[in-house]
Amino acid sequence: MPINFRAAKKDDLTKLVALLADDDLGKQREDISSPINNAYLKAFEEISQDPNNQLIIAERDNCIVGMLQLTYIPYLTHIGSWRCLIEGVRIHKNFRGKGFGKLLFEWAIEQAKNRNCNIVQLTSDKNRPDAIRFYNNLGFQATHEGFKLILRNT
Amino acid sequence: MPINFRAAKKDDLTKLVALLADDDLGKQREDISSPINNAYLKAFEEISQDPNNQLIIAERDNCIVGMLQLTYIPYLTHIGSWRCLIEGVRIHKNFRGKGFGKLLFEWAIEQAKNRNCNIVQLTSDKNRPDAIRFYNNLGFQATHEGFKLILRNT
Repeated sequence: MPINFRAAKKDDLTKLVALLADDDLGKQREDISSPINNAYLKAFEEISQDPNNQLIIAERDNCIVGMLQLTYIPYLTHIGSWRCLIEGVRIHKNFRGKGFGKLLFEWAIEQAKNRNCNIVQLTSDKNRPDAIRFYNNLGFQATHEGFKLILRNT
Repeated sequence: MPINFRAAKKDDLTKLVALLADDDLGKQREDISSPINNAYLKAFEEISQDPNNQLIIAERDNCIVGMLQLTYIPYLTHIGSWRCLIEGVRIHKNFRGKGFGKLLFEWAIEQAKNRNCNIVQLTSDKNRPDAIRFYNNLGFQATHEGFKLILRNT
Protein backbone atom coordinates (compact mmCIF):
# COMPACT_ATOMS: atom_id res chain seq x y z
CA MET A 1 0.00 0.00 0.00
CA PRO A 2 2.45 2.71 -1.15
CA ILE A 3 1.40 6.12 0.14
CA ASN A 4 3.32 9.36 0.03
CA PHE A 5 3.05 12.37 2.35
CA ARG A 6 4.08 15.85 1.25
CA ALA A 7 3.42 19.55 1.69
CA ALA A 8 0.57 20.82 -0.49
CA LYS A 9 1.50 22.96 -3.50
CA LYS A 10 -0.41 25.78 -5.12
CA ASP A 11 -1.27 23.47 -8.04
CA ASP A 12 -3.11 21.16 -5.62
CA LEU A 13 -5.51 23.83 -4.39
CA THR A 14 -8.46 23.18 -6.70
CA LYS A 15 -8.44 19.50 -5.74
CA LEU A 16 -8.05 20.32 -2.04
CA VAL A 17 -11.00 22.71 -2.05
CA ALA A 18 -13.10 20.07 -3.84
CA LEU A 19 -12.09 17.57 -1.15
CA LEU A 20 -13.00 20.00 1.66
CA ALA A 21 -16.38 20.63 0.00
CA ASP A 22 -17.16 16.93 -0.58
CA ASP A 23 -18.49 16.54 2.95
CA ASP A 24 -21.85 17.05 4.72
CA LEU A 25 -20.51 19.98 6.75
CA GLY A 26 -17.92 21.23 4.25
CA LYS A 27 -20.37 21.59 1.36
CA GLN A 28 -22.27 24.22 3.35
CA ARG A 29 -19.25 26.44 3.78
CA GLU A 30 -16.79 26.08 0.90
CA ASP A 31 -16.78 27.70 -2.55
CA ILE A 32 -15.97 25.34 -5.43
CA SER A 33 -16.55 27.92 -8.18
CA SER A 34 -13.97 28.22 -10.95
CA PRO A 35 -11.58 30.01 -11.19
CA ILE A 36 -10.66 29.34 -7.59
CA ASN A 37 -11.81 31.91 -5.01
CA ASN A 38 -8.85 34.16 -4.32
CA ALA A 39 -9.32 33.73 -0.54
CA TYR A 40 -8.05 30.14 -0.85
CA LEU A 41 -4.87 31.33 -2.62
CA LYS A 42 -4.30 33.95 0.07
CA ALA A 43 -4.81 31.41 2.87
CA PHE A 44 -2.47 28.98 1.13
CA GLU A 45 0.27 31.64 0.97
CA GLU A 46 -0.19 32.46 4.66
CA ILE A 47 0.00 28.79 5.65
CA SER A 48 3.04 28.14 3.43
CA GLN A 49 4.98 31.11 4.78
CA ASP A 50 4.49 30.11 8.42
CA PRO A 51 7.10 27.61 9.67
CA ASN A 52 4.62 26.50 12.37
CA ASN A 53 1.95 25.49 9.86
CA GLN A 54 2.00 22.60 7.41
CA LEU A 55 -0.76 21.74 4.95
CA ILE A 56 -0.18 18.06 4.19
CA ILE A 57 -1.38 15.78 1.42
CA ALA A 58 -1.43 11.99 1.41
CA GLU A 59 -1.25 10.68 -2.14
CA ARG A 60 -1.16 7.34 -3.93
CA ASP A 61 -0.65 6.73 -7.63
CA ASN A 62 -0.84 10.48 -8.21
CA CYS A 63 -4.30 10.68 -6.53
CA ILE A 64 -5.02 12.74 -3.44
CA VAL A 65 -6.05 10.27 -0.74
CA GLY A 66 -6.37 12.73 2.12
CA MET A 67 -5.28 15.98 3.71
CA LEU A 68 -4.80 17.67 7.05
CA GLN A 69 -3.17 20.75 8.54
CA LEU A 70 -0.62 20.66 11.35
CA THR A 71 0.02 23.69 13.56
CA TYR A 72 2.89 23.64 16.06
CA ILE A 73 2.30 25.92 19.05
CA PRO A 74 4.71 26.86 21.85
CA TYR A 75 3.14 27.17 25.30
CA LEU A 76 4.26 28.09 28.81
CA THR A 77 2.06 25.30 30.23
CA HIS A 78 3.42 21.81 30.94
CA ILE A 79 6.80 23.39 31.81
CA GLY A 80 7.15 25.18 28.48
CA SER A 81 6.03 22.71 25.84
CA TRP A 82 5.16 22.46 22.18
CA ARG A 83 1.80 21.17 21.11
CA CYS A 84 0.59 19.99 17.70
CA LEU A 85 -2.92 20.95 16.62
CA ILE A 86 -4.54 19.02 13.76
CA GLU A 87 -7.37 20.53 11.70
CA GLY A 88 -9.03 20.20 8.31
CA VAL A 89 -8.78 16.40 8.14
CA ARG A 90 -10.34 14.78 5.08
CA ILE A 91 -10.03 11.37 3.42
CA HIS A 92 -11.29 11.22 -0.18
CA LYS A 93 -14.47 9.12 -0.38
CA ASN A 94 -12.83 6.69 -2.85
CA PHE A 95 -10.19 5.85 -0.25
CA ARG A 96 -12.23 5.51 2.96
CA GLY A 97 -12.33 2.36 5.09
CA LYS A 98 -8.98 1.19 3.75
CA GLY A 99 -6.69 2.27 6.60
CA PHE A 100 -5.36 5.40 4.88
CA GLY A 101 -6.65 7.69 7.63
CA LYS A 102 -4.72 5.67 10.19
CA LEU A 103 -1.55 5.88 8.07
CA LEU A 104 -1.98 9.63 7.66
CA PHE A 105 -2.40 10.08 11.42
CA GLU A 106 0.53 7.82 12.28
CA TRP A 107 2.65 9.96 9.97
CA ALA A 108 1.30 13.20 11.50
CA ILE A 109 1.97 11.97 15.06
CA GLU A 110 5.53 11.15 14.00
CA GLN A 111 5.96 14.73 12.77
CA ALA A 112 4.70 16.04 16.12
CA LYS A 113 7.26 13.88 17.92
CA ASN A 114 10.01 15.17 15.62
CA ARG A 115 8.97 18.71 16.55
CA ASN A 116 9.27 17.82 20.24
CA CYS A 117 5.54 18.13 20.99
CA ASN A 118 4.13 16.78 24.26
CA ILE A 119 0.55 16.66 23.05
CA VAL A 120 -1.32 16.24 19.77
CA GLN A 121 -4.79 17.73 19.93
CA LEU A 122 -7.79 18.21 17.70
CA THR A 123 -11.49 18.82 17.93
CA SER A 124 -14.12 16.77 16.15
CA ASP A 125 -17.70 17.85 15.52
CA LYS A 126 -20.08 15.89 17.78
CA ASN A 127 -22.13 15.28 14.60
CA ARG A 128 -19.34 13.13 13.17
CA PRO A 129 -19.68 9.80 15.04
CA ASP A 130 -17.41 7.94 12.60
CA ALA A 131 -14.63 10.48 13.11
CA ILE A 132 -15.05 10.33 16.89
CA ARG A 133 -14.74 6.52 16.80
CA PHE A 134 -11.69 6.85 14.55
CA TYR A 135 -9.89 9.19 16.98
CA ASN A 136 -10.80 7.01 19.97
CA ASN A 137 -9.35 3.99 18.17
CA LEU A 138 -6.12 5.92 17.55
CA GLY A 139 -5.75 6.47 21.31
CA PHE A 140 -6.99 10.05 21.51
CA GLN A 141 -8.99 10.83 24.68
CA ALA A 142 -12.01 13.16 24.54
CA THR A 143 -11.12 14.73 27.88
CA HIS A 144 -12.16 18.24 26.80
CA GLU A 145 -15.15 20.10 25.51
CA GLY A 146 -14.41 21.75 22.16
CA PHE A 147 -15.91 25.26 22.26
CA LYS A 148 -16.37 27.52 19.23
CA LEU A 149 -17.55 31.08 19.02
CA ILE A 150 -18.54 32.05 15.48
CA LEU A 151 -17.62 35.68 14.83
CA ARG A 152 -18.55 35.79 11.18
CA ASN A 153 -19.95 33.33 8.67
CA THR A 154 -18.11 32.99 5.37
CA MET B 1 -12.90 48.75 37.44
CA PRO B 2 -9.71 49.82 35.64
CA ILE B 3 -8.00 46.84 34.01
CA ASN B 4 -5.11 46.83 31.59
CA PHE B 5 -4.25 44.21 28.96
CA ARG B 6 -0.72 43.81 27.64
CA ALA B 7 1.79 41.32 26.24
CA ALA B 8 3.67 39.41 28.94
CA LYS B 9 7.32 40.35 29.52
CA LYS B 10 10.20 38.17 30.63
CA ASP B 11 10.05 39.80 34.07
CA ASP B 12 6.48 38.51 34.53
CA LEU B 13 7.43 34.86 34.06
CA THR B 14 7.88 33.82 37.70
CA LYS B 15 4.44 35.20 38.55
CA LEU B 16 2.87 33.62 35.48
CA VAL B 17 4.29 30.18 36.29
CA ALA B 18 3.01 30.56 39.87
CA LEU B 19 -0.43 31.42 38.47
CA LEU B 20 -0.40 28.40 36.13
CA ALA B 21 0.57 26.17 39.06
CA ASP B 22 -2.06 27.58 41.44
CA ASP B 23 -4.73 25.28 40.04
CA ASP B 24 -5.93 21.71 40.68
CA LEU B 25 -4.71 20.50 37.29
CA GLY B 26 -1.81 22.92 36.88
CA LYS B 27 -0.14 22.05 40.18
CA GLN B 28 0.40 18.49 38.94
CA ARG B 29 2.32 19.58 35.88
CA GLU B 30 4.19 22.86 36.46
CA ASP B 31 7.56 23.51 38.14
CA ILE B 32 7.62 26.45 40.54
CA SER B 33 11.21 25.89 41.69
CA SER B 34 13.54 28.90 41.88
CA PRO B 35 15.45 29.98 39.82
CA ILE B 36 12.87 29.53 37.09
CA ASN B 37 13.10 26.35 35.02
CA ASN B 38 14.86 27.29 31.80
CA ALA B 39 12.17 25.57 29.72
CA TYR B 40 9.77 28.41 30.63
CA LEU B 41 12.26 31.01 29.38
CA LYS B 42 12.74 29.11 26.14
CA ALA B 43 8.98 28.77 25.60
CA PHE B 44 8.53 32.48 26.35
CA GLU B 45 11.11 33.38 23.68
CA GLU B 46 9.42 31.12 21.14
CA ILE B 47 6.00 32.62 21.87
CA SER B 48 7.33 36.20 21.76
CA GLN B 49 9.11 35.71 18.44
CA ASP B 50 6.03 34.33 16.70
CA PRO B 51 3.74 37.04 15.28
CA ASN B 52 0.84 34.55 15.43
CA ASN B 53 1.18 33.98 19.18
CA GLN B 54 0.43 36.43 22.00
CA LEU B 55 0.83 35.71 25.69
CA ILE B 56 -1.46 38.22 27.38
CA ILE B 57 -1.73 39.52 30.92
CA ALA B 58 -4.67 41.32 32.50
CA GLU B 59 -3.48 43.54 35.32
CA ARG B 60 -4.96 45.96 37.84
CA ASP B 61 -3.09 48.18 40.28
CA ASN B 62 0.14 46.45 39.25
CA CYS B 63 -1.28 42.99 40.15
CA ILE B 64 -1.68 40.17 37.65
CA VAL B 65 -5.39 39.44 37.48
CA GLY B 66 -5.29 36.82 34.74
CA MET B 67 -3.57 35.46 31.66
CA LEU B 68 -4.22 33.65 28.42
CA GLN B 69 -2.49 32.84 25.16
CA LEU B 70 -3.88 33.69 21.73
CA THR B 71 -2.78 31.83 18.60
CA TYR B 72 -3.90 33.06 15.17
CA ILE B 73 -4.05 30.28 12.57
CA PRO B 74 -4.65 30.57 8.82
CA TYR B 75 -6.78 27.77 7.33
CA LEU B 76 -8.03 26.77 3.88
CA THR B 77 -11.40 25.81 5.43
CA HIS B 78 -14.32 28.25 5.56
CA ILE B 79 -13.12 29.75 2.24
CA GLY B 80 -9.66 30.52 3.54
CA SER B 81 -10.12 31.93 7.02
CA TRP B 82 -8.19 32.88 10.14
CA ARG B 83 -9.07 31.32 13.46
CA CYS B 84 -8.09 32.35 16.97
CA LEU B 85 -7.23 29.61 19.45
CA ILE B 86 -7.23 30.45 23.18
CA GLU B 87 -5.23 28.39 25.68
CA GLY B 88 -3.70 28.64 29.13
CA VAL B 89 -6.49 30.73 30.65
CA ARG B 90 -6.13 31.57 34.34
CA ILE B 91 -7.71 34.12 36.65
CA HIS B 92 -5.83 34.70 39.92
CA LYS B 93 -7.82 33.32 42.89
CA ASN B 94 -7.96 36.78 44.53
CA PHE B 95 -9.78 38.15 41.50
CA ARG B 96 -12.32 35.41 40.72
CA GLY B 97 -16.09 35.98 40.63
CA LYS B 98 -15.64 39.69 39.96
CA GLY B 99 -16.19 39.75 36.21
CA PHE B 100 -12.52 40.01 35.26
CA GLY B 101 -12.61 36.77 33.25
CA LYS B 102 -15.45 38.18 31.17
CA LEU B 103 -13.49 41.41 30.57
CA LEU B 104 -10.39 39.44 29.57
CA PHE B 105 -12.40 37.37 27.11
CA GLU B 106 -14.22 40.37 25.66
CA TRP B 107 -10.81 41.93 25.04
CA ALA B 108 -9.46 38.70 23.50
CA ILE B 109 -12.47 38.35 21.20
CA GLU B 110 -11.92 41.94 20.07
CA GLN B 111 -8.30 41.07 19.17
CA ALA B 112 -9.55 38.08 17.14
CA LYS B 113 -11.93 40.36 15.24
CA ASN B 114 -9.10 42.82 14.58
CA ARG B 115 -7.07 39.94 13.13
CA ASN B 116 -9.97 39.08 10.82
CA CYS B 117 -10.78 35.73 12.48
CA ASN B 118 -14.04 33.94 11.69
CA ILE B 119 -13.96 31.72 14.74
CA VAL B 120 -12.57 31.82 18.27
CA GLN B 121 -12.05 28.35 19.68
CA LEU B 122 -10.77 26.70 22.82
CA THR B 123 -11.02 23.45 24.69
CA SER B 124 -11.93 23.12 28.35
CA ASP B 125 -11.27 20.07 30.52
CA LYS B 126 -14.54 18.25 31.25
CA ASN B 127 -13.39 18.27 34.91
CA ARG B 128 -13.75 22.06 35.05
CA PRO B 129 -17.53 22.61 35.36
CA ASP B 130 -17.13 26.27 36.39
CA ALA B 131 -15.03 26.99 33.29
CA ILE B 132 -17.52 25.20 31.06
CA ARG B 133 -20.38 27.28 32.48
CA PHE B 134 -18.28 30.43 32.00
CA TYR B 135 -17.66 29.70 28.30
CA ASN B 136 -21.32 28.80 27.73
CA ASN B 137 -22.33 32.12 29.29
CA LEU B 138 -19.96 33.95 26.95
CA GLY B 139 -21.77 32.45 23.95
CA PHE B 140 -19.31 29.67 23.10
CA GLN B 141 -20.95 26.45 21.87
CA ALA B 142 -19.52 23.05 22.85
CA THR B 143 -20.21 21.62 19.41
CA HIS B 144 -16.99 19.57 19.33
CA GLU B 145 -15.23 16.88 21.28
CA GLY B 146 -11.78 18.04 22.39
CA PHE B 147 -9.37 15.15 21.83
CA LYS B 148 -5.83 14.97 23.23
CA LEU B 149 -3.12 12.41 22.62
CA ILE B 150 -0.37 12.64 25.21
CA LEU B 151 3.00 11.88 23.60
CA ARG B 152 5.17 12.60 26.60
CA ASN B 153 4.57 13.74 30.17
CA THR B 154 6.61 16.68 31.39
